[in-house]
Amino acid sequence: MENESRGIRAIAWDEGKVVILDQTRLPSEEVYLVCTRVEEVAEAIRRLAIRGAPLLGIAAAYGVALAARGSDGGLRGRVRAAAELLRATRPTARNLFWALELMVERAEAGATAEDLRAEARRIHEEDAAACRAIGERGAELLRGVECVLTICNTGSLATGGIGTALGMIRAAHARDGRLRVIACETRPLLQGARLTMWELTRDGIPATLITDNMAGEVMRRGMVQAVVAGADRIARNGDVANKIGTYGLSVLARHHEIPFYVAAPMSTVDLDIPDGSHIRIEERNPEEVRGFGGARTAPAGAAVFNPAFDVTPGSMVTAIVTERGVVRPPYGSWGG
Amino acid sequence: MENESRGIRAIAWDEGKVVILDQTRLPSEEVYLVCTRVEEVAEAIRRLAIRGAPLLGIAAAYGVALAARGSDGGLRGRVRAAAELLRATRPTARNLFWALELMVERAEAGATAEDLRAEARRIHEEDAAACRAIGERGAELLRGVECVLTICNTGSLATGGIGTALGMIRAAHARDGRLRVIACETRPLLQGARLTMWELTRDGIPATLITDNMAGEVMRRGMVQAVVAGADRIARNGDVANKIGTYGLSVLARHHEIPFYVAAPMSTVDLDIPDGSHIRIEERNPEEVRGFGGARTAPAGAAVFNPAFDVTPGSMVTAIVTERGVVRPPYGSWGG
Repeated sequence: MENESRGIRAIAWDEGKVVILDQTRLPSEEVYLVCTRVEEVAEAIRRLAIRGAPLLGIAAAYGVALAARGSDGGLRGRVRAAAELLRATRPTARNLFWALELMVERAEAGATAEDLRAEARRIHEEDAAACRAIGERGAELLRGVECVLTICNTGSLATGGIGTALGMIRAAHARDGRLRVIACETRPLLQGARLTMWELTRDGIPATLITDNMAGEVMRRGMVQAVVAGADRIARNGDVANKIGTYGLSVLARHHEIPFYVAAPMSTVDLDIPDGSHIRIEERNPEEVRGFGGARTAPAGAAVFNPAFDVTPGSMVTAIVTERGVVRPPYGSWGG
Repeated sequence: MENESRGIRAIAWDEGKVVILDQTRLPSEEVYLVCTRVEEVAEAIRRLAIRGAPLLGIAAAYGVALAARGSDGGLRGRVRAAAELLRATRPTARNLFWALELMVERAEAGATAEDLRAEARRIHEEDAAACRAIGERGAELLRGVECVLTICNTGSLATGGIGTALGMIRAAHARDGRLRVIACETRPLLQGARLTMWELTRDGIPATLITDNMAGEVMRRGMVQAVVAGADRIARNGDVANKIGTYGLSVLARHHEIPFYVAAPMSTVDLDIPDGSHIRIEERNPEEVRGFGGARTAPAGAAVFNPAFDVTPGSMVTAIVTERGVVRPPYGSWGG
């Protein structure tokens, strides 16, 4: 199963255990968490040891599969309780809810523990395949682009495969080895600095790190010819919830007449909601903004605003790339 | 002399010594550096123990006054050498060069060490007066504004008085106690989180801290009705060099139809350069971007782009406030 790129295994099922690469320890250490109970998977999601919308879907499915083990008698009850627990971990990523709905549906229809394990594996493999398709289709959009700007992490640490926005970058770079990347560090949790720079360095794709407030200057100097971002949830009309800062990049890109692309599997698209106003945005702990890691930088108790995501209107998005194809505004038809 | 706000003394001349509040230790510790030689002042400037364009002018003047002490015989030579040393510390802030030109001119015209000490003190006092005037004029622009967004630090830790953009905020808040502030943390060196939040907290002005990439979302939600920034150098046509990220805020403000104000004393305005293309932008150590407050966050050796400033075209600036008045595009006449 292709669930990694150059040896990155963000999650794996290993003989009745779920093994998770603890992303909070990267890039300094590669530490793996071995989860034998769904509560451990939920905790790993809550504390962002595992993150990235498509990967959260996969982790949730494996978490349910863990809970399903044991006597057939109480299986449905255990699956329902596990889904309930996992549903309460984080509110924004569509894929988490999508995967839980699938798993519960299968259990209600009489699936065994072994069936549910196979279903989780299928969700994992399908995400890897979706990444490959997104990469291929997205690489076409990047023809002639020398350098792209990206935000957060959308690679093998966010998906079951080569990534969404990072999948586009990998596929475009594989074509002729010329594409370069500028990565926004992505405060407060620095997934760009810690995770994207780590993945790109391992892949030998030339990457330059900037602080988030340098994006405007990078565009003004003509240093990038496209912006690519992932998504946590996409509404029917193309409104995109993604990492905080994505919306600002879309405004900067529009001002500089640079295309702004979003890449995501269809499991991120929430056809049940007409627009982004229906997306619940997670607000996280103020301490994330008051410092980083052990370093406290703001005065103790400083008031903080800390939304983890923002919503970019579909009208600001040049195109959305899914495994089904490339769609453009006005959004509404999502292909195949 | 009013060189502080609520007891903040960023710099003082004390019986032949220059006492500098070490801003790198804020907000956790108030540590004062006692400089007896110009080399120590230059080093404090280089390592950002003291920063902020107007304050750099004051520090440079006191540094020259330190070097001028001693026998009258070698005074001019010592002043020239001190100016040379201080000129090489940091390239962008206009005020630094402006103050050095003044001090050298006075020495060449026969000033004594005592005259030069008095001249440095005059530069300090005039900056405090300029801040008061900017505050008064700028507060008028903020009538009806409930909350402003600001970047970096432009207060008593950046000037000889109540500040430039922060002077506007202080004066507007003093009017009826209602103005609130959202402060961008201002990576990489976090002057917003560390210094602006510290000053506003001491003053009892309600302030909320955000990461820089939240500015777009704050504007989209209608949480701020104006942006105010300081300046490190302003060209004749109104192009403004200021802390990296300022340009991006101007683009976001334009998109959201929010006024974008710049506040600076006339010592920041460089009438010798027609536009911002003539401003030298300092690039700083990559380690500032690879880490956060002592914590290493990016992979070792990651490539980095680290411009300390950017240039906002005058056409993006709604108005510039100096001690002489409020000017608007097209810039060129700077009043009184």
